[in-house]
Amino acid sequence: MKHIDLNAAALRLLAAPAVLILAHSHPDGDTLGSAWALAHALRALGKPVRVLCEDRIPAMFAFMAGGLAQAALENAYIVSVDAAEESLLGDVFAREYHGRVDLNIDHHATNGLYAKDNFIDPSASASAEIIGELIDAMGVPMTSHIASCIYAGISTDTGCFRYANTTARSHLWAARCMELGVETEPLDRAFFENETKTYLALERMAFDNLRYFCDGRVALVAVTQDMFRRSGSNDEEYIKIVARVKNIEGVLAGAAIREKEDGSYKISMRTHPPVDAAAICARMGGGGHLRAAGAASDLPLEETIAMVVRNIEEALT
Amino acid sequence: MKHIDLNAAALRLLAAPAVLILAHSHPDGDTLGSAWALAHALRALGKPVRVLCEDRIPAMFAFMAGGLAQAALENAYIVSVDAAEESLLGDVFAREYHGRVDLNIDHHATNGLYAKDNFIDPSASASAEIIGELIDAMGVPMTSHIASCIYAGISTDTGCFRYANTTARSHLWAARCMELGVETEPLDRAFFENETKTYLALERMAFDNLRYFCDGRVALVAVTQDMFRRSGSNDEEYIKIVARVKNIEGVLAGAAIREKEDGSYKISMRTHPPVDAAAICARMGGGGHLRAAGAASDLPLEETIAMVVRNIEEALT
Repeated sequence: MKHIDLNAAALRLLAAPAVLILAHSHPDGDTLGSAWALAHALRALGKPVRVLCEDRIPAMFAFMAGGLAQAALENAYIVSVDAAEESLLGDVFAREYHGRVDLNIDHHATNGLYAKDNFIDPSASASAEIIGELIDAMGVPMTSHIASCIYAGISTDTGCFRYANTTARSHLWAARCMELGVETEPLDRAFFENETKTYLALERMAFDNLRYFCDGRVALVAVTQDMFRRSGSNDEEYIKIVARVKNIEGVLAGAAIREKEDGSYKISMRTHPPVDAAAICARMGGGGHLRAAGAASDLPLEETIAMVVRNIEEALT
Repeated sequence: MKHIDLNAAALRLLAAPAVLILAHSHPDGDTLGSAWALAHALRALGKPVRVLCEDRIPAMFAFMAGGLAQAALENAYIVSVDAAEESLLGDVFAREYHGRVDLNIDHHATNGLYAKDNFIDPSASASAEIIGELIDAMGVPMTSHIASCIYAGISTDTGCFRYANTTARSHLWAARCMELGVETEPLDRAFFENETKTYLALERMAFDNLRYFCDGRVALVAVTQDMFRRSGSNDEEYIKIVARVKNIEGVLAGAAIREKEDGSYKISMRTHPPVDAAAICARMGGGGHLRAAGAASDLPLEETIAMVVRNIEEALT
């Protein structure tokens, strides 16, 4: 359970005869990009490798495997990438690999240091940045395909260089990937532009009842179980709605209210400076971060809406 | 009307006692970022400068002026930035400065070379990239504020590094700007996340009548003059609708039909490979690019829709 640095991590990997790489469950571009970039680099060194993820791989990340032969491994050196906690490997994997991860490579400052050796760099915008540096440290020549995996990790984790975790280092990696021949436009189109028909249907139903309060400084939508049923959408897609509500011109506080299966309501709030979302939600028994917070309500919908609006209103004045 | 290179352009600017910089009309982040970055750099050299634009400056770009004193100029050296044609300076400016531009700095390959000296670099993702290199060539120290103008130009012209014009050079500039202290997240939030209430209202009306054809491979919306009136939106905002229609999962051809003031219709089409938007629109008497084209129709709305769908259908089979 100890911290090690970049060179120590590179040496551990160089010493391993065969490597099993674990991505976290509900895989995103960074855990998969990190896993596959590392796998291709280790394979280039002649090592048998295998990448495993408990959940289905989204189609837009399928290119990363790049025809690499997945080896049948026994007693392999086990590496996790981008997984801040053992539990994030997924229900099955967290049991199967409990206490067995040899090297934990991650960029989350909250990492639980659950492996024998842990190489954590919270200054990296994405784990893929760390993996790129590790590949350099191992002396493996960077290829265009490895670079495309690294680019995917960085681009998805920074919202295409838009989030606050973006750094000069993220852009320098992107520049290097492009110099190696990565065509980023088709990748980013697949990562960011696709919208499901089910989400679009849900958003349309929600936005048909979009309401403004406080001279347009507050916007609110409500999504019912009936809307989920009719649209075929789900909780995961629903999250995008509250971001869109927050981004409306002039809106300082955006709220989305979602009916849960038991008929109670979950309130999600996003705010712009100086509005404190956590403070508003705390007044309704909830909590969260300064600009993103939530609360629950057992009141009927209209009373829930009235409560939310009243609490935002008091915070705005 | 001759081409000059980077160093020649830098020498012309260094030799000028006072400089008037013209941005193009309907100003975007690149023309304004280029104009203000250059203005601050020339001011740092002690030269009186003035930045002019025929149209109103969008609020999100107001920071660029950074308190720079606009000089009253007579007989100044006149520079245009990011304006591919004299006419793009706007109706009034194109007349006022006709034949009077001394130096035309631009990245559009189609540039009309209307100035005495023209420095055109079509390999640049944005004119702001060229301006950054010009500032280096003039030996002016890059400041954080100048870098923020350059970043704004590059980020807005590349859709935050998402469009196909993005290059390693764009990312290298972004890295340098961040190293100089530019906080990119609030800038990109202002550039890309804001949605007007009027656009949202128009989109809602349009999407309430979103229709799918050909097993969901075709999506189509129609926007009427009545919708423009009720939403308070306009043509400029409307353009975003067709992009969103194209980005729906599984859609190969997205079309938006807009009723014009005279009651006729304008068809806008966006496609994904292998669908040829130009070929489809050509069959309706229109034209355009491979993946973005348009046509006009004097038929009633439902007949126009039927014509569009029939022509797409035939192209898909």
